[in-house]
Amino acid sequence: MWKVVWAALLLLATVCAQRGYAKETKGAPKVGHVSVVIVGGTGDLAKKYLWQGFFQLYANQVSSGYSFSFYGGGLLPKDKATPILFEALKGVVCPRELSVERCALVKEQFLKLAEYWQLKTLEDYQALGKHLTEQLKQEGIVEAGRLFYLSVPAFAYADIAEKINNSCRPTNGAWLRVVLEKPFGHDFSSAQLLSTQLGTSLKDEEMYRIDHYLGKQVVSKILPFRRENSKHLDPIWNKHHIERVEIVLKETLDARGRIPFYDQYGVIRDVIQNHLTEVMTLLTMGLPANLSDVKEVLRNKLKIFSALQHLDRNCATIGQYQTYNLEVQEELNKTKEYYSLTPTFAGIMVHVDIAQYEKMPIILTSGKMLDERLGYARILFKNDIFCVQSHDSVHCKPKQIVFYFGHGTLQYPAILVSKNLFKPDLMDTEWKEVTEHKDVSVLGMPISDYYVLTPTVQREAYTELILHIFQGRKDSFISTENLLASWGFWTPLLHGLAKTSPRLYPGGADNGNLLDFRLLGREVTFANEAVVMITQDHMGGSGAESFQVMQGKYRSADMVSAWPEELIVRLAADLQAAAENAVREGGRFHLALSGGSSPLALFQRLARHHYSFPWRDTHVWMVDERCVPLTELDSNFRTLHDQLLQHVKMPYFNIHPMPVQMNQRLCVEEDSGALLYERDITQLVNASSFHFVLLGVGYDGHTASLFPGSKLDTHGDSLVALTESPAKPHQRMSLTLKAINQAQKVGVLVMGKSKHELVTQLSRVKDNPKKWPVTGIRPTSGRLVWYIDYDALLG
Amino acid sequence: MWKVVWAALLLLATVCAQRGYAKETKGAPKVGHVSVVIVGGTGDLAKKYLWQGFFQLYANQVSSGYSFSFYGGGLLPKDKATPILFEALKGVVCPRELSVERCALVKEQFLKLAEYWQLKTLEDYQALGKHLTEQLKQEGIVEAGRLFYLSVPAFAYADIAEKINNSCRPTNGAWLRVVLEKPFGHDFSSAQLLSTQLGTSLKDEEMYRIDHYLGKQVVSKILPFRRENSKHLDPIWNKHHIERVEIVLKETLDARGRIPFYDQYGVIRDVIQNHLTEVMTLLTMGLPANLSDVKEVLRNKLKIFSALQHLDRNCATIGQYQTYNLEVQEELNKTKEYYSLTPTFAGIMVHVDIAQYEKMPIILTSGKMLDERLGYARILFKNDIFCVQSHDSVHCKPKQIVFYFGHGTLQYPAILVSKNLFKPDLMDTEWKEVTEHKDVSVLGMPISDYYVLTPTVQREAYTELILHIFQGRKDSFISTENLLASWGFWTPLLHGLAKTSPRLYPGGADNGNLLDFRLLGREVTFANEAVVMITQDHMGGSGAESFQVMQGKYRSADMVSAWPEELIVRLAADLQAAAENAVREGGRFHLALSGGSSPLALFQRLARHHYSFPWRDTHVWMVDERCVPLTELDSNFRTLHDQLLQHVKMPYFNIHPMPVQMNQRLCVEEDSGALLYERDITQLVNASSFHFVLLGVGYDGHTASLFPGSKLDTHGDSLVALTESPAKPHQRMSLTLKAINQAQKVGVLVMGKSKHELVTQLSRVKDNPKKWPVTGIRPTSGRLVWYIDYDALLG
Repeated sequence: MWKVVWAALLLLATVCAQRGYAKETKGAPKVGHVSVVIVGGTGDLAKKYLWQGFFQLYANQVSSGYSFSFYGGGLLPKDKATPILFEALKGVVCPRELSVERCALVKEQFLKLAEYWQLKTLEDYQALGKHLTEQLKQEGIVEAGRLFYLSVPAFAYADIAEKINNSCRPTNGAWLRVVLEKPFGHDFSSAQLLSTQLGTSLKDEEMYRIDHYLGKQVVSKILPFRRENSKHLDPIWNKHHIERVEIVLKETLDARGRIPFYDQYGVIRDVIQNHLTEVMTLLTMGLPANLSDVKEVLRNKLKIFSALQHLDRNCATIGQYQTYNLEVQEELNKTKEYYSLTPTFAGIMVHVDIAQYEKMPIILTSGKMLDERLGYARILFKNDIFCVQSHDSVHCKPKQIVFYFGHGTLQYPAILVSKNLFKPDLMDTEWKEVTEHKDVSVLGMPISDYYVLTPTVQREAYTELILHIFQGRKDSFISTENLLASWGFWTPLLHGLAKTSPRLYPGGADNGNLLDFRLLGREVTFANEAVVMITQDHMGGSGAESFQVMQGKYRSADMVSAWPEELIVRLAADLQAAAENAVREGGRFHLALSGGSSPLALFQRLARHHYSFPWRDTHVWMVDERCVPLTELDSNFRTLHDQLLQHVKMPYFNIHPMPVQMNQRLCVEEDSGALLYERDITQLVNASSFHFVLLGVGYDGHTASLFPGSKLDTHGDSLVALTESPAKPHQRMSLTLKAINQAQKVGVLVMGKSKHELVTQLSRVKDNPKKWPVTGIRPTSGRLVWYIDYDALLG
Repeated sequence: MWKVVWAALLLLATVCAQRGYAKETKGAPKVGHVSVVIVGGTGDLAKKYLWQGFFQLYANQVSSGYSFSFYGGGLLPKDKATPILFEALKGVVCPRELSVERCALVKEQFLKLAEYWQLKTLEDYQALGKHLTEQLKQEGIVEAGRLFYLSVPAFAYADIAEKINNSCRPTNGAWLRVVLEKPFGHDFSSAQLLSTQLGTSLKDEEMYRIDHYLGKQVVSKILPFRRENSKHLDPIWNKHHIERVEIVLKETLDARGRIPFYDQYGVIRDVIQNHLTEVMTLLTMGLPANLSDVKEVLRNKLKIFSALQHLDRNCATIGQYQTYNLEVQEELNKTKEYYSLTPTFAGIMVHVDIAQYEKMPIILTSGKMLDERLGYARILFKNDIFCVQSHDSVHCKPKQIVFYFGHGTLQYPAILVSKNLFKPDLMDTEWKEVTEHKDVSVLGMPISDYYVLTPTVQREAYTELILHIFQGRKDSFISTENLLASWGFWTPLLHGLAKTSPRLYPGGADNGNLLDFRLLGREVTFANEAVVMITQDHMGGSGAESFQVMQGKYRSADMVSAWPEELIVRLAADLQAAAENAVREGGRFHLALSGGSSPLALFQRLARHHYSFPWRDTHVWMVDERCVPLTELDSNFRTLHDQLLQHVKMPYFNIHPMPVQMNQRLCVEEDSGALLYERDITQLVNASSFHFVLLGVGYDGHTASLFPGSKLDTHGDSLVALTESPAKPHQRMSLTLKAINQAQKVGVLVMGKSKHELVTQLSRVKDNPKKWPVTGIRPTSGRLVWYIDYDALLG
């Protein structure tokens, strides 16, 4: 921490300086001048937190050799805005560590250093830029840097950044720092667009994206706590010991007055994508060797993002408080028929797919209009003790670590560690142990069952962060990579939920157990099922319709159609039914799977949701393979392996990759790889008839690796053949039409708008395997089912 | 259940019959006569439970058309024993369902039907046999069967069974049933011996081995409860929902007065191997399609036994109450220096290795001198609900099903189901729901949070079982297969614990948390570590010594030696250290493993205890392979697969079985399998130098598949070669000495007394690979370590 060492000595000299341009001061390092510009300097955030933060920065730094000037900027003309600004400035309060007398002096000086500046047009910014440069020159002092704090709506960012870039850049090596407040986009592509726009004006290191949670004392203590207590934590900070992690932000307020903003965002974008996600990364990321190595911190954070399991709609429950929609109708001038689907509550389960945390549930939940205001992250450890007697002993109680952000029963920020875990180290003088407390209960346990640590001095998050901006501590801010990784993670869920009706809840204590949710495998559902979904009824059933699975005929075979996610759910269920049936009848299930992108979602669903799939008795075969080593990323087997096989318990012997590589070479006719695979099939699969063959179809009508115009007729009675693809890699190995048509069931999976034209075309053509190989799929005694999603079917 | 339908009508006619030989009675089915002989009929068990049980059987069956006679047998002469017998008989009490008047009549009759008979010598049995036959003939009535209840020490079983077989077998198709009380042996081989001995006199279906737990109403209700509530239970009766299962029998009594018996057995043999294990099988076995299909019930039970994970010493904690040893010294006339290691407390964790229950902890625990008398089996379900608010709702509480055997706070047998689980079906008229209760707490929850079911009439276990013997319901008894399977499961643990000092505990409430134990992975340890092991000190350190790992030199290389289990622990730890080191340095760990029996324990240890082993970055290679298909049970790879690979998460590509089968044939020179494997090594392993090669050594000094007298010199620079074994299957594929000696570390594992001679011999010979191939192991730049257990080293 920056230490105020010169304070007493230099006080007088400094506070006598006019407008902050430092006179030569004996003993103080000549570190230069800092200009601070709050764009939106008369706005709510500035009035409530920012000026206070900059005042504390000033009080802290006034004797460090830096000099300052402060500008409140805004759209209002100077005469109207200046009184508002000074009203706000006069309201700042002194940090506790200052004496009353000194505080009065510092505050007086601070007011003298501040000025309002209208910042509307390019000319305004040019004038400001000119002013800054001239003042410095005039006073003959060195410039350290310029800090622009954009406390304005996000849509204005790009424009202001451009103006700053054009007119207000410092020269002579002084730094430029531009601080931005969320929202940074509302999904991956908008965030990317905004980043690109800002990137044309600002360098990455010049941008300071604020997530004020990172300024909360308890949150910024997470990594140091993990480091300082690593002796105790290292052995237990993993899936074997942690039962689950909960990151919770409960609010009692509604969204009234903020609807125009809120209704565009909802609870996930408002607090989960940013605040709770940041806390999650701090809890799970690998500890950097050096906590102050900003790059390593950011790199380790990114590793967590890349290991997060894909979220689908089943990983979340959403709710909306009952009066929300009325507020929307009012504030957005909507009719009584208008229904907003924006969630004001969400319960989400996240998994980090690295060995340390595999299958360990991380719950992120937040909502408005709940029963209490409370924020915390709790690590609940598994109950691994069997208590033979004396069950009331502290020993037999739950073990947990709670990072308590504030409010709730405790009312102050704290880190709590169950006494039956370990006694945490008192980390530094900024934290102290609390030994006397009111008789309160924290997350189900009396406070006396915890060791309780709390900051010696409580500080506002903004005050902390303003200091960090000044210090250039970029690990307290959201890097572009971090931001995009977070949106990349959340966007599919947000899109998946876009048409989902939230459960309505009355608000406050009346919610009862309506919002409790159940975790099962990767799924989250409301625990209390017996509730009518009121919104859905009001919406004329469109909610219900969108989940419907349709059955019909296509090319005179059976067809199942649905929205993409439901289609995959259905196909996976059909596969499991076929598997169970086959195992019941003959002890084995022989399944042939295709490559390509369509089955990816299927593999993931099977791996994550089908616990009882009889994998032990399932043999997996390949429909086709590219002639590349199996370990290459574009090998069909590699994809199948990474997405499915690696996640289920299957005997090694049941896995049958195609032998495309033999004698250290790929798909050479003389190596007879195709024949070898055929022999394996003949030997293991009863009558060489697979129980289920899953196919895709390409834009050109190819299926398996059987391409239009290829010599399908030369395959004769072969079950496996080497083929040629028009696309790279050209060489392929594939099951033949004969092998496929011998199967007991063949499913053809077709997904995505881009397949719509093909689906339409195929519905009109006769069987012509030479031109449209997929039309050659006509199982001799088995059943063909087309699985076509609505996008492909309806365009 | 057998219904007493004729009771009122036939009462008079029946009770007037003399000595039980039924007169012709109108309306009653002529089902014949049953002779009951209790050998040990004046003993404690007979006095306390058995005569009461037979009296109830008689009262129940008196009107069913059966007639009875009862004989108390024993070593005492008739004149001395008869008064004792009748004293006991007069003490029987009437079942509730009988009126006082009727009871008096039935009891009078019962006394008339009973007689004492001295049963000491073969002549005594011959006389009894003759008497039974003549009486029947004399009265001219049909015989239904003869029931011998052996309430005598187990050592007398074989002799008595032989006498019964010789002299007391009924003829004319009447049945013979011989009832036995535990103990049935004290380990697998003694149980097997006893079974074989009994088998020479009795057929399997004639033996009724009693485990009185199976007669407890709550225990015998487990399967029907599971069936009747299967709608609710089927989805949750698995590892995904069950947190753990606890089967607990707590006693407050000590072993005083029973020491000569108890000290030979201890708590595991006394109650865990039998009672608690039976409960465990009932809770976990597959539900038979038909609960009254005795064969299916027994078959499904056996399936559980065959799926139980092997127990080693780390799966249990044991204790002994502090005054036990004094009691032993007194009752067994031992000196003050004598210390018994017999456990009076044990906490054990068991796993059933089928997909449904994989990794789900099942805790079996029992002890004497604990704080309360209590027996129960609890299924605790996972907390899968996140409660957003209203945490006191029943909804947010633990979910459990408790089979409460009796005593404790509740004082009556019951089945309790948490109200947030489901409302159990009231199964039959023999059970009722309890809705009004005292305000007690059962296993951490107020009783009002449970649905509580209890039997309408409470019956003694012996009474139930005596009825079941009469009905021939063999599923209520321990079959020979079941008995041997249970001993087969428990014996290795009992042997493993034989030299372990139990933790001493003071007894009663003073035990505090001394006996609480912690579960971690597959291990169980006392939760409270800070206790001095008093016995060990007293034992002159022999306890401590037996765990010591010794390091030294063997054949001028390093040697690690220890007792078998510790040696494996050490080797596994060395392997993990090598793996972590290699991964840290180069991202990969290349490990070559041998076949044979020695590494089995290692594989199991790695699979079960080494959670953090870097499997993802480990490549497993084979040292040698038999030329059999890889799926055959005698394939080295198959063993490795089943014991290790199947249990860890390893990419498919990292697994390198030897290609012994190519082109549908085994180890044919032209197929160049050895060359292919060599190429894989060259390509993937840096400088073809494995990080670790684990070898064994055969009695003839062979290692890998390099046998004495084989042409090792013809291998030249090859890394892999086809070789010949003197034993079947003769053909092998093996790494060559060159490949092995290129490794960075080579471990040779030698275990078991049978290797002692070899170890001695090898310590004396010079390097002579032709005669002793293992002496050719001389890593060129790597390190060789011999891992030799004390059995092999010291003989």
